[in-house]
Amino acid sequence: MIATTPEPPYLAVVFSNQRTKGDQGYAAMAEQMIELAQTQPGFLGVESVRDPEGFGITVSYWKDESAIADWKANAEHTVAQRLGWEKWYAAFRLRLCRVEREYGMDSR
Amino acid sequence: MIATTPEPPYLAVVFSNQRTKGDQGYAAMAEQMIELAQTQPGFLGVESVRDPEGFGITVSYWKDESAIADWKANAEHTVAQRLGWEKWYAAFRLRLCRVEREYGMDSR
Repeated sequence: MIATTPEPPYLAVVFSNQRTKGDQGYAAMAEQMIELAQTQPGFLGVESVRDPEGFGITVSYWKDESAIADWKANAEHTVAQRLGWEKWYAAFRLRLCRVEREYGMDSR
Repeated sequence: MIATTPEPPYLAVVFSNQRTKGDQGYAAMAEQMIELAQTQPGFLGVESVRDPEGFGITVSYWKDESAIADWKANAEHTVAQRLGWEKWYAAFRLRLCRVEREYGMDSR
């Protein structure tokens, strides 16, 4: 699902990751984190996709750095991050980006 | 596959898209474009994932705006872009971003 975002500039967190084998509670927590993120001040949208080989990209969009810092420090999210480091991801990369411009084609 | 990129700053093009039904020559062209992009000056890496429902995110990383402009203007890529507008995508959004910082966990 493509996120509907405001006019740039705003921020994007590009989270590229490879899952370890087995669910280990991941799917439920991932769904919960997407729901929780949506309640955060400054949250603008999220796009998430994973292929059958366990490679995934989640891009979340935020109003400013302070919104991202608050989300990173959220208590429930902190637990999820720790489990990500400990068992859910075989590898990941998180890139904080400033969206400068955009264009696209709406659903046809 | 997580891209190995240099120290920020550099640029990212986040291309979020929903495929139309059927292949219509898409898979072969997509593979060809990934190969071609890798030969472009200023290309730093690419990460691409699509789920079974046809939603995909491709993030390509570039040295600077000029590298992105050259890639957008590449003759073969121009043909692919036109076919994307005409038949391959039901919707898409392309966001040009400046990567400001990053961190991650390498493969374990």
